[in-house]
Amino acid sequence: MDFPSLTPGAGDDVPLYLQLYWRYRDAIASGKLRAGDRVPSVRSLASEINVARGTVELAYQMLTSEGYFSPRGAAGTFVSPRLALLGETAPMAAPTPPAPAPFEAEMAAGVPRPFQLGLPALDAFPRKTWVRLAGRRLRMMDLASMVYPESAGYGPLRHAIATYLGISRGIACTAHQVFVTPGYRAALDLVCRTLLKPGDEGWFEEPGYPFARQFLTSAGMRLAPIPVDGEGLDVSHGMQRAPNARFAVATPTHQSPTGETLSLPRRLQLLDWAAQQKSWIVEDDYDSEFRYHGRPLPALKSLDRDGRVLYTGTFSKVLFPGLRLAYLVVPAAHIERFAQAASQLGGPASVPVQATVADFMEQGHFARHLRKMRTLYAERRGYFVDALDEVFGDDLYVQPQAGGIQTLAYLRRAFARRSDVSIAEAAHRHGLAVHALSRWYGSTPTGSGLLMGFTNIPDREAALALSRRLRAAAKAG
Amino acid sequence: MDFPSLTPGAGDDVPLYLQLYWRYRDAIASGKLRAGDRVPSVRSLASEINVARGTVELAYQMLTSEGYFSPRGAAGTFVSPRLALLGETAPMAAPTPPAPAPFEAEMAAGVPRPFQLGLPALDAFPRKTWVRLAGRRLRMMDLASMVYPESAGYGPLRHAIATYLGISRGIACTAHQVFVTPGYRAALDLVCRTLLKPGDEGWFEEPGYPFARQFLTSAGMRLAPIPVDGEGLDVSHGMQRAPNARFAVATPTHQSPTGETLSLPRRLQLLDWAAQQKSWIVEDDYDSEFRYHGRPLPALKSLDRDGRVLYTGTFSKVLFPGLRLAYLVVPAAHIERFAQAASQLGGPASVPVQATVADFMEQGHFARHLRKMRTLYAERRGYFVDALDEVFGDDLYVQPQAGGIQTLAYLRRAFARRSDVSIAEAAHRHGLAVHALSRWYGSTPTGSGLLMGFTNIPDREAALALSRRLRAAAKAG
Repeated sequence: MDFPSLTPGAGDDVPLYLQLYWRYRDAIASGKLRAGDRVPSVRSLASEINVARGTVELAYQMLTSEGYFSPRGAAGTFVSPRLALLGETAPMAAPTPPAPAPFEAEMAAGVPRPFQLGLPALDAFPRKTWVRLAGRRLRMMDLASMVYPESAGYGPLRHAIATYLGISRGIACTAHQVFVTPGYRAALDLVCRTLLKPGDEGWFEEPGYPFARQFLTSAGMRLAPIPVDGEGLDVSHGMQRAPNARFAVATPTHQSPTGETLSLPRRLQLLDWAAQQKSWIVEDDYDSEFRYHGRPLPALKSLDRDGRVLYTGTFSKVLFPGLRLAYLVVPAAHIERFAQAASQLGGPASVPVQATVADFMEQGHFARHLRKMRTLYAERRGYFVDALDEVFGDDLYVQPQAGGIQTLAYLRRAFARRSDVSIAEAAHRHGLAVHALSRWYGSTPTGSGLLMGFTNIPDREAALALSRRLRAAAKAG
Repeated sequence: MDFPSLTPGAGDDVPLYLQLYWRYRDAIASGKLRAGDRVPSVRSLASEINVARGTVELAYQMLTSEGYFSPRGAAGTFVSPRLALLGETAPMAAPTPPAPAPFEAEMAAGVPRPFQLGLPALDAFPRKTWVRLAGRRLRMMDLASMVYPESAGYGPLRHAIATYLGISRGIACTAHQVFVTPGYRAALDLVCRTLLKPGDEGWFEEPGYPFARQFLTSAGMRLAPIPVDGEGLDVSHGMQRAPNARFAVATPTHQSPTGETLSLPRRLQLLDWAAQQKSWIVEDDYDSEFRYHGRPLPALKSLDRDGRVLYTGTFSKVLFPGLRLAYLVVPAAHIERFAQAASQLGGPASVPVQATVADFMEQGHFARHLRKMRTLYAERRGYFVDALDEVFGDDLYVQPQAGGIQTLAYLRRAFARRSDVSIAEAAHRHGLAVHALSRWYGSTPTGSGLLMGFTNIPDREAALALSRRLRAAAKAG
């Protein structure tokens, strides 16, 4: 295989290591590189194509961890001999599906594509600190990490979460109220199994987070779509449409996907309704940590005098999704019931992982990382919004937002006549993980726009290049 | 605090490190040791009470990881200052509940008690190898480990499982048929969501694994208890009692809890029934790896010509439960449906953990460990059965078994008049995690006996001491 074909194109907007990674995968898939072939060393390839060694190293690491490459120490790095066993098929590891439906792309595993939603800035995570803390926990390998973990979560992590929520979200809770789960949906599962039964009716934001809608529907819940406006969930509408609903799911801090904040009057109205109906409010506080303008509002839970709010948060957006860690805060009166349900479900991730997060929080790395990301995301959002403006002008209207890690752009003028789904699909065919707003509706969509993650767009140039690529994709159809 | 109170009693059957651990916890709970107190160094305590340094080290590690101790490098080790914040209450980490109902004890987290079911030999796990492999994966910290893991499991691990099942369980399957889950119940969840619906009827072994019964019932399944005899599940009985059942859950290799093997005629009869009814068989092959006499029987799945068997296995018994990793093999025709359901559930543990297991398997450590454990468990079971015989004589009848990691002893003579539940509860009050057989029935129990794990009983002396302690507990009531 000749080196030049690996030379990354200059003006391209995809990070160099990803370009390298993909070209190697293509070369293997097409048979240009075969099982057992030796590949150039990091040093020689880096000097040959004139990129930093770190860039080549990262690509090689990815290829190795996914089973494409097999390093043999001083002998060099080889295309994995295992690939031969697989015959013509590519290895299964981390296949980025060619063009999944926009809907399924959000949680897609494997190498993230531009605009992927729900991801923190992967390049800005303090890996060294993490690896050091996790390594310490790993080497302990004590009994607690070998036997079944506590189904409610590792004690010190529950403590650390309770402390954090008290300080930064205004939530007064004890560690006993905190249940660690392997993700947001597992937290919903716990709520369903503990407080709800199939057939129960619930309010669901319209538009709203599709995965939660899908999960609740498959759990047998009947969802009443309640519209969202500039003050967030329209509580009066909900009280008219489904006054006796058993529960309401809401994203008060940054409505998902519109980014609107639930106003204080609405908050009080919602809490009032729940108290009177003895209904439950599930507060999904998925990215409240990232607020760029003004003071962050305390969580809805902080106003919950009657114990009707089930508060959920996740480490996916503030650390990284691969952790598979989220949490649920339950009213003190129901700890026992939740503990019972949690013991039936089998609990969250392994103890060393939970312990590492606890260490990370207790030693102050968490607060420091959040502060840095707040600044970084405000900056990256700025690059992206400016670039959209420069490339699309009045064809897109970018929804102003006080925080969050995704941008919503409504279609205008030339684009207004096209469906957001067709544009999102065109973008997907060009490798861009854009979501269509109308796919976030449970009933007939009343809005049309594009949802895009911006946390992994490193600078002005990348933002511009990606915006141009999006425009070209939309035009090409 | 004076050292002598920590001197482990000579004839005691609890491992020394656990005695040390408990005495420190007691000392902290009772206020003899306070937050901020310095504790003796490992070296000086070991020499003072004349035990190996490794023993003290293990106890200190446990106390540190659970938040009781706080090491400060050269300054020494201290009782954690955090304990002061908790006031009078003990820290939450890994509380071993004083005497949980026998039923709940099986999955109990924290320090295991004697006879705990479902645990491998924790002292015989190759920790060094594991820590080395896991450390390598941790330091990679590539993108794949940061983003959402594949919901069906990490590719190379699915490959390794498929290969292993082909060689050791006679199951011909591709990696695409393997779904990695965070435990056996998550595998059941996947089956319920994909192939079953609430209200569906299913055969369930009587007696049978309580956690699975509980989980399926809470998922809305109607379970028909089907008795077990010397040939395992009584298929004819099932065909009479619930001929149109949509599914059957079975433990063909070592019936849980009787240890009986499903005979070949019964296997064929069960497969026939399922093929004709288009019903599903869930094969729970939880500890097939441990077979002491005769050749291991291939899995039921290996005879499955019609694609009716859903095969499940777990790493809890062959590696350790803290991993939270199990797997499900689905018929090739249904891969898509399962992939869809798995993507809704959010997938298994983090990628580095899965990758470490894959490495462990691919590099031959797994096969080597299984071989060693087969010999070790045969030996430890021998110690335990001999000890029961010496201490209880004809008052207990130990069910012969060809494999598995737990022992079932039926009550005879003097004990036959007492309920197994009262004896198990008495044992629990004395710190022994004995299960009552009658609690493993869904309807009226027809058998009475004691279920005990033996994998962590290291030698003849411990086996004798524990048997005596069990007899004393049973007598004291």
